[in-house]
Amino acid sequence: MKEGGNRKQGTASPCAACKLLRRRCAQDCVFAPYFPADEPHKFANVHKVFGASNVNKMLQELPIDKRGDAVSSMVYEANARVRDPVYGCVGAISSLQHQIDVLQTQLAQAQAEVVHLKVRHSAAPQANNKPMFDHMDMVDQVSLGESMWSC
Amino acid sequence: MKEGGNRKQGTASPCAACKLLRRRCAQDCVFAPYFPADEPHKFANVHKVFGASNVNKMLQELPIDKRGDAVSSMVYEANARVRDPVYGCVGAISSLQHQIDVLQTQLAQAQAEVVHLKVRHSAAPQANNKPMFDHMDMVDQVSLGESMWSC
Repeated sequence: MKEGGNRKQGTASPCAACKLLRRRCAQDCVFAPYFPADEPHKFANVHKVFGASNVNKMLQELPIDKRGDAVSSMVYEANARVRDPVYGCVGAISSLQHQIDVLQTQLAQAQAEVVHLKVRHSAAPQANNKPMFDHMDMVDQVSLGESMWSC
Repeated sequence: MKEGGNRKQGTASPCAACKLLRRRCAQDCVFAPYFPADEPHKFANVHKVFGASNVNKMLQELPIDKRGDAVSSMVYEANARVRDPVYGCVGAISSLQHQIDVLQTQLAQAQAEVVHLKVRHSAAPQANNKPMFDHMDMVDQVSLGESMWSC
């Protein structure tokens, strides 16, 4: 098992979890790699929200290479629950879902405007790309008097 | 305190939490209003992830009118953690944030296309709406030979 940041092999320096739980930090402590002594708050909130026993069980049930991510997500959830005891990180989920709704509406509006402009744009060049001799009509319209061919 | 769905006053029918914890369900049980006996899984996951003692403490620290929302968010988090023991509902947050990134990119592209089309569109009518006498240039271009005014 990996050693925690500030934990020295063979010394009695406990990890943040064992220090908070006032217990001996064994060499094979499941918390030590993820809760170093210099980050006491990291474990405090996880313990408050999930309980040391549950975190221990959840980590033991995971392969070692997944435990770091599991701790990170539990720390995130615990901090969110301490900040917002009613909604926890479900508050963040609601907020993100609201942002998605707003963005989807804005995207649909922008895409509709693109389609609208493309339709207008595809109509406009037809008028613009009329054969050059059609401009003779315009010359007629400016009332030059007699036909040019009559000169 | 509100009574839970299937909990009859004066009977020994325990709420789902007290049933799982094998304890007497008191009239003032903090779990009973939110964990009715007919929804045993609702409490089982919350207990597994947060621990009954932590849930009890968290509910006691909240005003009664906030406890229903707190239980709902804890049930959501607990179910997410049981489904995904590594990321829990933080996995949902990552997924939603990814969706937001994708939508923001799509929106920026659509808005850029709107601006581009508007610029093209505002240029096209100018060419189309040139003063009529500008069409004389066109007449020159079709090489009518001598100037009309020289007739």
